[in-house]
Amino acid sequence: MSKGTVVLAYSGGLDTSCILVWLKEQGYDVITFLANIGQDEDFEAAREKAVSLGAKKVYIEDLRTEFVEDFIWPAVQANAVYEDRYLLGTAVARPCIARRQVEIARKEGAQFVSHGATGKGNDQIRFELTCYALYPEVKIIAPWRVPEFYNRFRGRTDLMEYAKKHGIPVPVTPRAPWSMDANLMHISYESGILENPKSHAPADLYLMTKNPEDSPNVPDELEIEFRNGVPVKVINVKDGMSKDTPLDIFSYLNEIGGKHGVGRIDIVENRFIGMKSRGIYETPGGTVLLKAHLDIETFTMDKEVRRIKQGLGIKFSELIYNGFWYSPECEFVQHCIAKSQENVEGKVQLSVFKGHVYILGRESSKSLYNEELVSMDVQGNYDPCDASGFIRINAVRLREHHRLQGLSSIKQ
Amino acid sequence: MSKGTVVLAYSGGLDTSCILVWLKEQGYDVITFLANIGQDEDFEAAREKAVSLGAKKVYIEDLRTEFVEDFIWPAVQANAVYEDRYLLGTAVARPCIARRQVEIARKEGAQFVSHGATGKGNDQIRFELTCYALYPEVKIIAPWRVPEFYNRFRGRTDLMEYAKKHGIPVPVTPRAPWSMDANLMHISYESGILENPKSHAPADLYLMTKNPEDSPNVPDELEIEFRNGVPVKVINVKDGMSKDTPLDIFSYLNEIGGKHGVGRIDIVENRFIGMKSRGIYETPGGTVLLKAHLDIETFTMDKEVRRIKQGLGIKFSELIYNGFWYSPECEFVQHCIAKSQENVEGKVQLSVFKGHVYILGRESSKSLYNEELVSMDVQGNYDPCDASGFIRINAVRLREHHRLQGLSSIKQ
Amino acid sequence: MSKGTVVLAYSGGLDTSCILVWLKEQGYDVITFLANIGQDEDFEAAREKAVSLGAKKVYIEDLRTEFVEDFIWPAVQANAVYEDRYLLGTAVARPCIARRQVEIARKEGAQFVSHGATGKGNDQIRFELTCYALYPEVKIIAPWRVPEFYNRFRGRTDLMEYAKKHGIPVPVTPRAPWSMDANLMHISYESGILENPKSHAPADLYLMTKNPEDSPNVPDELEIEFRNGVPVKVINVKDGMSKDTPLDIFSYLNEIGGKHGVGRIDIVENRFIGMKSRGIYETPGGTVLLKAHLDIETFTMDKEVRRIKQGLGIKFSELIYNGFWYSPECEFVQHCIAKSQENVEGKVQLSVFKGHVYILGRESSKSLYNEELVSMDVQGNYDPCDASGFIRINAVRLREHHRLQGLSSIKQ
Amino acid sequence: MSKGTVVLAYSGGLDTSCILVWLKEQGYDVITFLANIGQDEDFEAAREKAVSLGAKKVYIEDLRTEFVEDFIWPAVQANAVYEDRYLLGTAVARPCIARRQVEIARKEGAQFVSHGATGKGNDQIRFELTCYALYPEVKIIAPWRVPEFYNRFRGRTDLMEYAKKHGIPVPVTPRAPWSMDANLMHISYESGILENPKSHAPADLYLMTKNPEDSPNVPDELEIEFRNGVPVKVINVKDGMSKDTPLDIFSYLNEIGGKHGVGRIDIVENRFIGMKSRGIYETPGGTVLLKAHLDIETFTMDKEVRRIKQGLGIKFSELIYNGFWYSPECEFVQHCIAKSQENVEGKVQLSVFKGHVYILGRESSKSLYNEELVSMDVQGNYDPCDASGFIRINAVRLREHHRLQGLSSIKQ
Repeated sequence: MSKGTVVLAYSGGLDTSCILVWLKEQGYDVITFLANIGQDEDFEAAREKAVSLGAKKVYIEDLRTEFVEDFIWPAVQANAVYEDRYLLGTAVARPCIARRQVEIARKEGAQFVSHGATGKGNDQIRFELTCYALYPEVKIIAPWRVPEFYNRFRGRTDLMEYAKKHGIPVPVTPRAPWSMDANLMHISYESGILENPKSHAPADLYLMTKNPEDSPNVPDELEIEFRNGVPVKVINVKDGMSKDTPLDIFSYLNEIGGKHGVGRIDIVENRFIGMKSRGIYETPGGTVLLKAHLDIETFTMDKEVRRIKQGLGIKFSELIYNGFWYSPECEFVQHCIAKSQENVEGKVQLSVFKGHVYILGRESSKSLYNEELVSMDVQGNYDPCDASGFIRINAVRLREHHRLQGLSSIKQ
Repeated sequence: MSKGTVVLAYSGGLDTSCILVWLKEQGYDVITFLANIGQDEDFEAAREKAVSLGAKKVYIEDLRTEFVEDFIWPAVQANAVYEDRYLLGTAVARPCIARRQVEIARKEGAQFVSHGATGKGNDQIRFELTCYALYPEVKIIAPWRVPEFYNRFRGRTDLMEYAKKHGIPVPVTPRAPWSMDANLMHISYESGILENPKSHAPADLYLMTKNPEDSPNVPDELEIEFRNGVPVKVINVKDGMSKDTPLDIFSYLNEIGGKHGVGRIDIVENRFIGMKSRGIYETPGGTVLLKAHLDIETFTMDKEVRRIKQGLGIKFSELIYNGFWYSPECEFVQHCIAKSQENVEGKVQLSVFKGHVYILGRESSKSLYNEELVSMDVQGNYDPCDASGFIRINAVRLREHHRLQGLSSIKQ
Repeated sequence: MSKGTVVLAYSGGLDTSCILVWLKEQGYDVITFLANIGQDEDFEAAREKAVSLGAKKVYIEDLRTEFVEDFIWPAVQANAVYEDRYLLGTAVARPCIARRQVEIARKEGAQFVSHGATGKGNDQIRFELTCYALYPEVKIIAPWRVPEFYNRFRGRTDLMEYAKKHGIPVPVTPRAPWSMDANLMHISYESGILENPKSHAPADLYLMTKNPEDSPNVPDELEIEFRNGVPVKVINVKDGMSKDTPLDIFSYLNEIGGKHGVGRIDIVENRFIGMKSRGIYETPGGTVLLKAHLDIETFTMDKEVRRIKQGLGIKFSELIYNGFWYSPECEFVQHCIAKSQENVEGKVQLSVFKGHVYILGRESSKSLYNEELVSMDVQGNYDPCDASGFIRINAVRLREHHRLQGLSSIKQ
Repeated sequence: MSKGTVVLAYSGGLDTSCILVWLKEQGYDVITFLANIGQDEDFEAAREKAVSLGAKKVYIEDLRTEFVEDFIWPAVQANAVYEDRYLLGTAVARPCIARRQVEIARKEGAQFVSHGATGKGNDQIRFELTCYALYPEVKIIAPWRVPEFYNRFRGRTDLMEYAKKHGIPVPVTPRAPWSMDANLMHISYESGILENPKSHAPADLYLMTKNPEDSPNVPDELEIEFRNGVPVKVINVKDGMSKDTPLDIFSYLNEIGGKHGVGRIDIVENRFIGMKSRGIYETPGGTVLLKAHLDIETFTMDKEVRRIKQGLGIKFSELIYNGFWYSPECEFVQHCIAKSQENVEGKVQLSVFKGHVYILGRESSKSLYNEELVSMDVQGNYDPCDASGFIRINAVRLREHHRLQGLSSIKQ
């Protein structure tokens, strides 16, 4: 008799194939779910593999458009960057996948969900917090935290042996000495030889971006148009190529950014569970968008709104990183940030070249930029004498501070 | 009879030369002060010019070392960046210059200081707040805010005429259609044709950095060593070139960064007085250091300390930008940031190439990075089961939130 | 010929009566505007006085309801408190008055507005920033900053003489040796003998609250019902008295709070212009509401939303204090805070007694409080073992920190 | 053979007595540790009880002075308040106790520590994070999270039975229908009948403070002197009673505060683990100190330093509440806050009456208060015209915002 039905986040790889078989061994019915979030994958082969390994049902779903619209776009609005550098490519993908997975679980009446994330990482948290938030009664099976599982499979060799024994196809190409995770937004690399924070990443590691040393010697020039803080159109100024749906825009920015080697970073970051880990990321389109959005935002948003919004954006980034996409505070912050974007519209021109993005100019009918007011050549509606009072009033406090320090130095 | 003595921040250019003469015309004795903070200048020629125009005394002082140690280094510790992009090259120079200027004023018994900053900009504020903070009784003459002055000199033509009439040497080379400000840390460009935020910067504008299209096709690789969050040594990995004093280190990073076109930005920023203005900056060495410091800091600093320090760094940046270097709050924040840097030590390897800085690796004896703890291959002192509890406790709140939403959706 | 029309914020007192006449003397037509925001005033007498002094037109408007709904309620939602103590009674009134004043100015085609606020205080700023924000082209005449005015009227004696000369009725009762400002929300006292921060306030100073030593020996017990973070009903539990419109509710809370001596504070605060000043305030109803709102808010709002909202509330308070009610950032923050209040609903029971407010209990259908979950007697849907993992994961970082400190102490 | 030695935090009550015996039953040697942090307790009776129940060794230590100096004083400097209301009386005591407990464990070579805190509360976390931080290798036995324990003892009846069976003295007085925790700083009450957030606390619940309805009809007047942000002396103005050591000062403030019924609150708070819980607290001396410290701090501290420090104080409060006293970030924040207190010195006069604290006046030789500068009667070193410029420059942004809104309303 079945212990119940599990919806397993299935990648088609060795680990989740072994988990599929192991779950069946434990007495569960297994439904596999494979989300297409832009990774390079033979989805049909994965489907056949899952079926052949005994999946009761196989879901393969194209989530790319909702990934861009519901997850990447809010991150763009927020200028979401974790610890000043990481653009959160994995972190925004997890709630997108898990949201669909619990929808399937509810639809199929499955009490269980399962995934192949490790016990030391962030993804387990991002995945499970989403599940608990959206399906509070769900039971989660995380094999890499189940002693029977992780004591049995202590390394890749154990998985290979198990695979051979149970008819699980074993990868024929040798594995890279690191692990990677890919989606439409980025590829991340970690573990293996990268665990030594001092050793440099091998040149052949990157799959999404050209090595800037080999990238074209001529820049591409783009114009990105924003509305409500998200891109609505991108034009390649030279060849006139133009894109105007979220998925097309983002894919095209990946293409151009990737071609010019944009968005590579090598960092040590702080995981939610309190460890430091080394990660290498390439986020071509996201990096282009971050630069462009920063530019149009500062151009159109009031200075003090910007300061407050900057703080909210940092908070948002931490929440996303830590897996709290579906939480009351993240919903609140996302709402506030979206509110701040109402006037963030206009066009940014930029060039992409040899790993870098250069902002060239911008225009907007919603800008608070006032060319006459700021001009050095004309007065505009501005009286320079006012600045004297402004400065002297700002100095009141500083002079009092100095007075007191003087007093205390006299006394001592 | 003299109205008193003015110490004038003198650049040797047309504006401050006219101000010198005008101040004398108004009845003041004028002492000129020209600070060497790394700008490209013929200091001897400036001295002679000041003398010939009637300066009572001429001070020319090399402040480069104190500029690096007392102003740039704290900015490096803070990862000081204004509005996510501007590295504050002008803003950190102003208090350095004004500090020395009021020292001279006190020494010379001068009641007045004067400068040539315009009435719409930030520099007047940075300059004057420093003066008021360090010399509260000082009187400031800001000609560009004095109606008699600015009504008389409505444009460059008026200045040129005045110069000719008063024997002030007039520049012979045609002026660039923008204004610039240079120091060891950066060059800024604004005004003139740059006031249109849409028009692209001309290719020949930049003086400190090579155009990345023309920069070397081979990267330079550097190792920067930090202690207390500031660089103590830089080594060029390929040729073994090494620098270890603050001024040498920073100058060398400028050289390498400049050679590879690093640190160019084109932004619209928010001035303290509430206008948006367009500025173009090149900060080669500062950009290299920012990237390297971010890396070693995250590598060695506790995650939660980092979060708090990040907020303080943003605050620090705003204070610097707005001219509050010498304020109680800036001293407080600077103290706190310095405290956070006690363990920020180690070496960062990076390459500089075609306008971009790539972090390659890092090492530190003070790192909280624990290779065994984070390893995917060994357990380390870590029980994966703990993560289950961690996640479920974090989910308590999310499930309650969902429960309440469920209740309310039932009720309605 | 008239220099134009001024709308003068007129109080009926000596200062603004002199200003009225002085403005006419200067060649302006003067329209007086007197707002009823709940202060104790003979409005008809003020009207007659203004007419007799030559006001071209007299506006007297009851703004009490909009004062409560548009200004006090948002402050309640925000738990708005400046520098941990001041409930902002004056600060929220200024934009309410100035908003109406510029409406009148626009309607009457007046280019000028004027007020009697002093040149050292906050009110001039609050008043004028509102005017500039809502009527950017307006010209402001602030006589206490006009040298011709303040040099002529160096003290009260000068005003009295001027009044006598110009037929301005002079107050017959001796003036209190301090100044006060009253409205529906509070009365503030400052200046005069209160300027010495060490001297105690006289017992007869307070007009809105009973001295707690003389207040009733029996508490009043109230139940306040909130919706969207604002009170919608108040019931006196003992006598059943009930109020349910904003103005009635707030007035009743003033009555009960005042009767029991609630809401007196004596503070030194930091003015926007950078001086410290001593102020004494009594805010009876506002204090009761603050306590009640804090209670229902924490009861119904998610913990992490609360943390973020707390920061926004502090920001909001600073903005209000500094006069930025009508600013992009204040509108943004007010929007965010209002969003956070959507579930802040329920009833709070409290008692008011001898200067203090005691929360007794609370209930809400929107509460995230889960009696079963938190119970010490039943398990609820909670596994205590989870807490072990939660704690150990939280300790990962702390143990690493200790490890590193241990290493460094060994080395040294 | 023994499984090892456990140092048990022992209170002398039923729970920890049962735990003592149960631990022995499980095969451990047990050392009991009872900290005197000011609670009302018969320490000798507890010692005898522990010995009679088989404790291998009994530690009873008076930690009151270090509790005040090392834990309460930093909280006073920070104005530490959790969620706007709770003064953290329990939270600051836990690291004080646990610090000594791990010192004993290290000294005794004990590998284990144990405590009687429940599995749903904050105290388990505060206790254990301190242990892990200071003794990273320690093993913690938390019986209320051990299934064998909590499944065996499902309620008080089970404990009573076990006690009777094992010769553990059983309390003879009937237990209050709530639980309480007492120390020098406060008493907290929760659970039992208090779990219903709507039911009012019984009048006889409070032990540390008089009911304000029964408290004296005459206020006490105190003068508290601060240095470095902590009290160094308290004087009762009427009878001249004076205290000047930390423990004496705090105890005396408890006495006076308690006599007048000061410091009672009834709140719902958010526990670290994400539940809301209802707690009732009385913190007499702490409440008096909070009010006095807030006053002297604002009087002596620069406005902008205060704003930054306020944020740090909120952070510090959250860290203390959540159990992170011994963490890198808490040490960092505590250092920064201490730095901010360097000039916080002077005297505050206040009266204590019927549950409330009234600030009456303050004085300090370090104050930034400048009576002449702020005076309404004399000009001081202040030019009111400066305020005009200050306001107009602050309005630049607001007018631009309005201009843009005007434009967009025209367009639509």
